[in-house]
Amino acid sequence: MNERCAAFRALHHADRPLLLPNVWDHAGAAAFAARGYPAVGTTSLGVAASVGLPDGAAATRAETLRLARVLRRLPLLVTVDVEAGCADDPAAVAELAVELAAHGVVGINLEDGRADGTLDPAELTAAKVAAVKAAAPGVFVNARTDTWWLGLPDPLPETLRRARAYEAAGADGIFVPGTPDADTVAALVAGIDAPLNVLHRPGGPSLDDLHALGVARVSTGSLLFRAALGAAVDTLDAIRSGTTPPTRSPSYDEVQRLSDASRQ
Amino acid sequence: MNERCAAFRALHHADRPLLLPNVWDHAGAAAFAARGYPAVGTTSLGVAASVGLPDGAAATRAETLRLARVLRRLPLLVTVDVEAGCADDPAAVAELAVELAAHGVVGINLEDGRADGTLDPAELTAAKVAAVKAAAPGVFVNARTDTWWLGLPDPLPETLRRARAYEAAGADGIFVPGTPDADTVAALVAGIDAPLNVLHRPGGPSLDDLHALGVARVSTGSLLFRAALGAAVDTLDAIRSGTTPPTRSPSYDEVQRLSDASRQ
Repeated sequence: MNERCAAFRALHHADRPLLLPNVWDHAGAAAFAARGYPAVGTTSLGVAASVGLPDGAAATRAETLRLARVLRRLPLLVTVDVEAGCADDPAAVAELAVELAAHGVVGINLEDGRADGTLDPAELTAAKVAAVKAAAPGVFVNARTDTWWLGLPDPLPETLRRARAYEAAGADGIFVPGTPDADTVAALVAGIDAPLNVLHRPGGPSLDDLHALGVARVSTGSLLFRAALGAAVDTLDAIRSGTTPPTRSPSYDEVQRLSDASRQ
Repeated sequence: MNERCAAFRALHHADRPLLLPNVWDHAGAAAFAARGYPAVGTTSLGVAASVGLPDGAAATRAETLRLARVLRRLPLLVTVDVEAGCADDPAAVAELAVELAAHGVVGINLEDGRADGTLDPAELTAAKVAAVKAAAPGVFVNARTDTWWLGLPDPLPETLRRARAYEAAGADGIFVPGTPDADTVAALVAGIDAPLNVLHRPGGPSLDDLHALGVARVSTGSLLFRAALGAAVDTLDAIRSGTTPPTRSPSYDEVQRLSDASRQ
């Protein structure tokens, strides 16, 4: 395992949960790096929506690789959301992970949810995890189960069953987005050995709460992309109506300097 | 001239100034189309910063074409900021304009400011305008002079001299960003025959004010991109500190639907 992969792994065993902002372009990633974040994830929704493609439909393999190439120039550890690996064949998923690792990527998110709202069989996702770990052992595989996300009734037992299958296949972390409350998070921490990743939810448990519950990693998912888009729309509405735009904007020079972060 | 070019031209002679949002990706453009905007421009800063390149340095030719290809699927008239044409040779600038027109682009912005803070000779920019109009007559050439932008002392006479040179070369509109106040805008409207484009400036004249002054087009420049980036940073800060994020965010489903706008 190379040094960068080891450093990323260590962030899951630190004093505080790893707060992982999910990015979709160089500017946001550079801004977060400048604020001291050591690592970023990508947001598949952001990557897809930026070019008018659907999320979760394996349509963004090329765009995802393109973003990885752009981000590698920044002083950041990068983990990439590959949805379900952009393929059903574990060998093809492993190939994508190897390609990403060659671009300096230290981790991937691999999910079992499908665009049609169903779940892949746990055995298929486990086989993808195993294939990636065999082909790119240093890459931190964060296996995501969409049991809550897709609204399964009574999701906890199935979540734990899947988490154990993914751990047995070599997953380095387990990601359960959409968990509703602190009790659920506590049950997941108790039932899962690998570092647990949850999604930040506005109005949900705070970072401090999640820390106390034993969560290892908190990601922002598509929230920052959606907040950015909302601010662009609201700013334009304010210009049209002659009111004051709702947010602070960095200056032209500040934005130009973000690109310098890749040229030093 | 094709219908779309004619429709874009007509927007410069309507009852109200054309409020032209400048975009950098599909999601923002689709959101503005859904809000009823008939046309968008691109922001060269946004295009450059998205991939970690400098703005205004002719580095983003490929990215600019890529964005044009992405935007053409939307029900929008698109005008593209090509900085100084990404070349010093008027023939190369014309070639870029022809390539953009083949992607459905109806207009370009062509500027005389250089990355080193100086201005190209007016004759060079005029030659570029003439070359574009000869090669792609339907394309609305909005010639931008950076006399104010780059802080020229006593910029008004030089601005009018340049505007006339660009009009004589065939420019369809004149863009003077950075003009400080209503009196200046009035002097520009009085001294320039072609439709005048100014940049929206927070705290500056409102759309209504600019309408009363005779401005034909008001663009947002890099503001929406900067507001989006600012919101992403502020939202992440709020998550880290456990406070409430500053802006409204569209939902996951709302963002997914924006991509549908290109698949209907």
